[in-house]
Amino acid sequence: MSNLAAVMPELGRIEIRDLPEPQPGPRDAIVAIEAVGVCGSDTAYFTYGRIGDWVVDGPLILGHEVSGRVVAIGEGVTQVAVGDRVAIEPGTPCRDCEDCLAGRYHLCPRLKFLATPPYDGALVQRVALDERNLFVVPDGMSYEEAALCEPLSVGIWACRRADLRAGERVRVSGAGPVGILAAQVARALGASSVVISDVAEFRLDKARELGFEVEHSGAIGEGPGHEDADVLLECSGAPGVLAQGLWRLRNGGRAAMVGMPKQDVSLPLSRLNVKEISIALVNRYAHTWPTAISLVSSGRVDVSALVTHRFPLEQTQDALTLASRVPDSLKAVVYPQGIPSE
Amino acid sequence: MSNLAAVMPELGRIEIRDLPEPQPGPRDAIVAIEAVGVCGSDTAYFTYGRIGDWVVDGPLILGHEVSGRVVAIGEGVTQVAVGDRVAIEPGTPCRDCEDCLAGRYHLCPRLKFLATPPYDGALVQRVALDERNLFVVPDGMSYEEAALCEPLSVGIWACRRADLRAGERVRVSGAGPVGILAAQVARALGASSVVISDVAEFRLDKARELGFEVEHSGAIGEGPGHEDADVLLECSGAPGVLAQGLWRLRNGGRAAMVGMPKQDVSLPLSRLNVKEISIALVNRYAHTWPTAISLVSSGRVDVSALVTHRFPLEQTQDALTLASRVPDSLKAVVYPQGIPSE
Amino acid sequence: MSNLAAVMPELGRIEIRDLPEPQPGPRDAIVAIEAVGVCGSDTAYFTYGRIGDWVVDGPLILGHEVSGRVVAIGEGVTQVAVGDRVAIEPGTPCRDCEDCLAGRYHLCPRLKFLATPPYDGALVQRVALDERNLFVVPDGMSYEEAALCEPLSVGIWACRRADLRAGERVRVSGAGPVGILAAQVARALGASSVVISDVAEFRLDKARELGFEVEHSGAIGEGPGHEDADVLLECSGAPGVLAQGLWRLRNGGRAAMVGMPKQDVSLPLSRLNVKEISIALVNRYAHTWPTAISLVSSGRVDVSALVTHRFPLEQTQDALTLASRVPDSLKAVVYPQGIPSE
Amino acid sequence: MSNLAAVMPELGRIEIRDLPEPQPGPRDAIVAIEAVGVCGSDTAYFTYGRIGDWVVDGPLILGHEVSGRVVAIGEGVTQVAVGDRVAIEPGTPCRDCEDCLAGRYHLCPRLKFLATPPYDGALVQRVALDERNLFVVPDGMSYEEAALCEPLSVGIWACRRADLRAGERVRVSGAGPVGILAAQVARALGASSVVISDVAEFRLDKARELGFEVEHSGAIGEGPGHEDADVLLECSGAPGVLAQGLWRLRNGGRAAMVGMPKQDVSLPLSRLNVKEISIALVNRYAHTWPTAISLVSSGRVDVSALVTHRFPLEQTQDALTLASRVPDSLKAVVYPQGIPSE
Repeated sequence: MSNLAAVMPELGRIEIRDLPEPQPGPRDAIVAIEAVGVCGSDTAYFTYGRIGDWVVDGPLILGHEVSGRVVAIGEGVTQVAVGDRVAIEPGTPCRDCEDCLAGRYHLCPRLKFLATPPYDGALVQRVALDERNLFVVPDGMSYEEAALCEPLSVGIWACRRADLRAGERVRVSGAGPVGILAAQVARALGASSVVISDVAEFRLDKARELGFEVEHSGAIGEGPGHEDADVLLECSGAPGVLAQGLWRLRNGGRAAMVGMPKQDVSLPLSRLNVKEISIALVNRYAHTWPTAISLVSSGRVDVSALVTHRFPLEQTQDALTLASRVPDSLKAVVYPQGIPSE
Repeated sequence: MSNLAAVMPELGRIEIRDLPEPQPGPRDAIVAIEAVGVCGSDTAYFTYGRIGDWVVDGPLILGHEVSGRVVAIGEGVTQVAVGDRVAIEPGTPCRDCEDCLAGRYHLCPRLKFLATPPYDGALVQRVALDERNLFVVPDGMSYEEAALCEPLSVGIWACRRADLRAGERVRVSGAGPVGILAAQVARALGASSVVISDVAEFRLDKARELGFEVEHSGAIGEGPGHEDADVLLECSGAPGVLAQGLWRLRNGGRAAMVGMPKQDVSLPLSRLNVKEISIALVNRYAHTWPTAISLVSSGRVDVSALVTHRFPLEQTQDALTLASRVPDSLKAVVYPQGIPSE
Repeated sequence: MSNLAAVMPELGRIEIRDLPEPQPGPRDAIVAIEAVGVCGSDTAYFTYGRIGDWVVDGPLILGHEVSGRVVAIGEGVTQVAVGDRVAIEPGTPCRDCEDCLAGRYHLCPRLKFLATPPYDGALVQRVALDERNLFVVPDGMSYEEAALCEPLSVGIWACRRADLRAGERVRVSGAGPVGILAAQVARALGASSVVISDVAEFRLDKARELGFEVEHSGAIGEGPGHEDADVLLECSGAPGVLAQGLWRLRNGGRAAMVGMPKQDVSLPLSRLNVKEISIALVNRYAHTWPTAISLVSSGRVDVSALVTHRFPLEQTQDALTLASRVPDSLKAVVYPQGIPSE
Repeated sequence: MSNLAAVMPELGRIEIRDLPEPQPGPRDAIVAIEAVGVCGSDTAYFTYGRIGDWVVDGPLILGHEVSGRVVAIGEGVTQVAVGDRVAIEPGTPCRDCEDCLAGRYHLCPRLKFLATPPYDGALVQRVALDERNLFVVPDGMSYEEAALCEPLSVGIWACRRADLRAGERVRVSGAGPVGILAAQVARALGASSVVISDVAEFRLDKARELGFEVEHSGAIGEGPGHEDADVLLECSGAPGVLAQGLWRLRNGGRAAMVGMPKQDVSLPLSRLNVKEISIALVNRYAHTWPTAISLVSSGRVDVSALVTHRFPLEQTQDALTLASRVPDSLKAVVYPQGIPSE
């Protein structure tokens, strides 16, 4: 039986290779990967070969928004069984350092994360994964939904970092997949209003379809007098948008910074200090999978609404170049075992 | 024009009297009261003449779950206008003491609270109220819904006091109005599961209708090994139920105590200490009305589902004795301007 | 009896004028001002006529670090008595708005603050002040110490905004009065280590005298690998220092921004996001006076150590120009009733 | 070389035995135990053979307040070296379960804890310990101080559980070792006042010597009107004292329950609810050793002041029966390598 993988041997190119069958360690399960969402970071590694201080150095398998089915387990595995359908948390912490012991395992300096150099991702048919990264999903939840628990986790964590409470007015800047998911989480947590801003009409339409109020980013004013939000979830990564969003916060408002601006960001702190804003930088997530599964399986969050394109493993290169080829695209999902019929 | 009120001249008796027309102070609005929910505390004052350290001493008007329509305003009023439909927060703090300045105005020692001796409530056709106690509700929201923002506020505050976070497993003990509202709030805040327990089949049925998992209180075990909840919202006031609920919490779990047990409560702290539970006592609420209005008007919480009986002002005595006469009742609402046609 | 005041009729000039005797409102006390610390903001108004969006427009009395003695009280005053020695909180909130009711009265949009245009300060012999701004100090505490509870409050609030906990490693950037006071507070709250950085040798010497470890700002490296602090208290207002300080924080570290940089601040958020830092902007303080008085009167914080120069009211102009004339100065105090003998 | 241990072969009797030389696992260090504080729980196991659900079943070595010197290390040890002087955290979590990953490792259901059945303690000359339980102490810190970082950790954790903030008024009930240490921590964290209550004059004297205000427990009133504290640290374990202490809290006050009452505790929740108190149960501690070492080594907490009696290992039985024989005793320390000369 072949074990095909989408390998990136060099920047900008994907090659389908047959990998050796994975062997499980004592705490590992072999998972047949069913769905893999394509993330902006996959595209960035594919295109530029780096994100911040992480640099691609040699062939790499991408893909970290992943779900699958357990097909074999190591001798010490107790938390999953063969046949289990699982959502997959892509980060494996050391469980030994101070950060892990303090509950912030996502900041573990020895974290191994799928598709982050030098670690391979999961655009492959079968892979060995630590059982502690696997979360069994209910029958009614699709593999696609299970895979998208990963970007949903970013939205959940953004809300936690912003200490979002029920009844608050929320502004989300950036209507990409993470922005729209963060907005849905905010609503599911009891936000009294959620406004999404973006520059792209296609994205704003998608937000509108999901029931959100929308606003063109350009329409946002700066300076005192524009306050209409308690919480800002910045998901655009556009440097100018950040300061605008902060001006929209009420005194004592809180912001979570999810977007990764490529340039340095300039902030008028001398004027913003007066508003006494709290700004929480965001690096992925921790302790989010059970919540993500609950929000999706109960219908409170619709992750599949984001998926605009689906590909078999063989067309991974198309999936990775989708954003540059098709402006009106939002989220691509690759199916290593083949696209399921409805 | 008459201004009829349901006055309790002595324990157990209601008399309809015509009161003088209320005159607004500079910050007051005159509100035509449209709907008044009957609370267990109204029934307790009516029957026993006291709750804890509050004792009825002289004639009293009951009713603190209230909504209405602004019909006149004082000269300094700026936040509401004639014609506004409003939900009413029944507590008026001094705004001067340390508690008020610290943001916990509901604990203000000089708090004036509707229908809490020596202050009259709002089972009356028109009453003067500080504009800062009035919250305008959207057109689509009924007066009944607006009145029930008061018990809903108790549920919201219970969740805040328990520091409830999305994804947590919640147990609610007591399926009375407050318990069912607290359960709905927990769900609206992203709880992954909500189980309600009670002894009365009628109440459990109501909880089931609203989509909750239910459990007979008697079925709950004590001691280690029964943990299945992150958060307990105790709304029964039954002393024995409390310890049971605490045993169901996971290590580090959190409980909010909303129910008011009549006797002292005995807790096995030497054994519970090991679980390192946090227990938050609850006294009403603060800062909840905007959240309550948002949850109801967006359809995330259904308060009207609780209402089993409706009365005109003249039948206030029937409303106050409903619980003792009709076991299968949950919430009565009195309409001082007459019961609206559908 | 004259009531002399140091009035600034135009930028850069102080004139001693005799004001009318202040008349107390019902909740006011007349306070004989005994000590007034000179703050950087006083100097800024004196020199530039503005700070951020506050602009001097007409004659202004400066001075908001103030203490004094109650010499008369209005008819409704109950919290202080004639003869009381008091520390003075300079901000008077409206107690009516949402910010006040929420406990963040310092962000009240109608806050009246001493020596912030258009409100006069307290470089005057006698002034009427709301009793709720007055905090009686113990006998052993000097007026100078009582006045310096104001900048100390900034340090206390910075620690609260940074959520500083005992055992944490703290870095303070900027060894001016606020930086040194913030460092002392951090130590009094149980910080395991406190390092202060600055560029000026005189200031570092002062920090050293008070028992702190010091470091030249220039010596601080950027980028990953320099982490040695849990908490940053940025008190320099120097734009470049901020990013440096953030790099010194461990993953998940927290920063409070007290300094007011004159230019916009540029932050490499794309790289800092990975550290998941929390940044709290700071605008003065709230609820700090009792804590400040306790820390000073118990000897846990030494505020007088900062005072390098003392002036009678007549030499207020010298006090305001001290920083530009005498590099090795830190804090000037003006004594409206005359400098006390030892 | 002998490796003597104080073994409890049956209730109420200690026997000195020579144990085999311990062999280090890969992550273990062999520690020569230098000082062992005797805790009330040691005495309880010695006398009654049980604490709550933990029951002695077979011979047991007591002692969990421990310090020592590293004399050998396993092959994988990187955090300590031979010669290091160390304070020892007695609990070893699994690092695998949900509690561990969430940062609350002290609630790990598989926690191995020194001197808690079925795990032996450290009243022995040499023992193998996981390097992650060892915290190097500075040169100036004595072994006795290092050992007493354990009860000090209880005091630190109590303050954290009560969310104690600088400037708050603290009441400590119970002037035993934990109560006095909790009081010292409260002071070191900036409490504005700390009052200790007890029934024993000897203990109150000790508290007085350390600079605390004291009060006889019997003198404390119940019911409304006695509020004078923001925080209660209950360290007596006396059931009646708890309710008294809660009445002393201001509205919205917070309590940490450290004492382990032998009987159930009866609470008047219906009256206390009005005060909206928060009650945090306490089970040992987590993440406290660095803070404890910092507080002791900087002189902010004096742990040695508690030590009233010192014993060589051979007199362990005397140490364990001290409390019953000598009323005016507070804390005994056993020295497995012999009592050091001054």
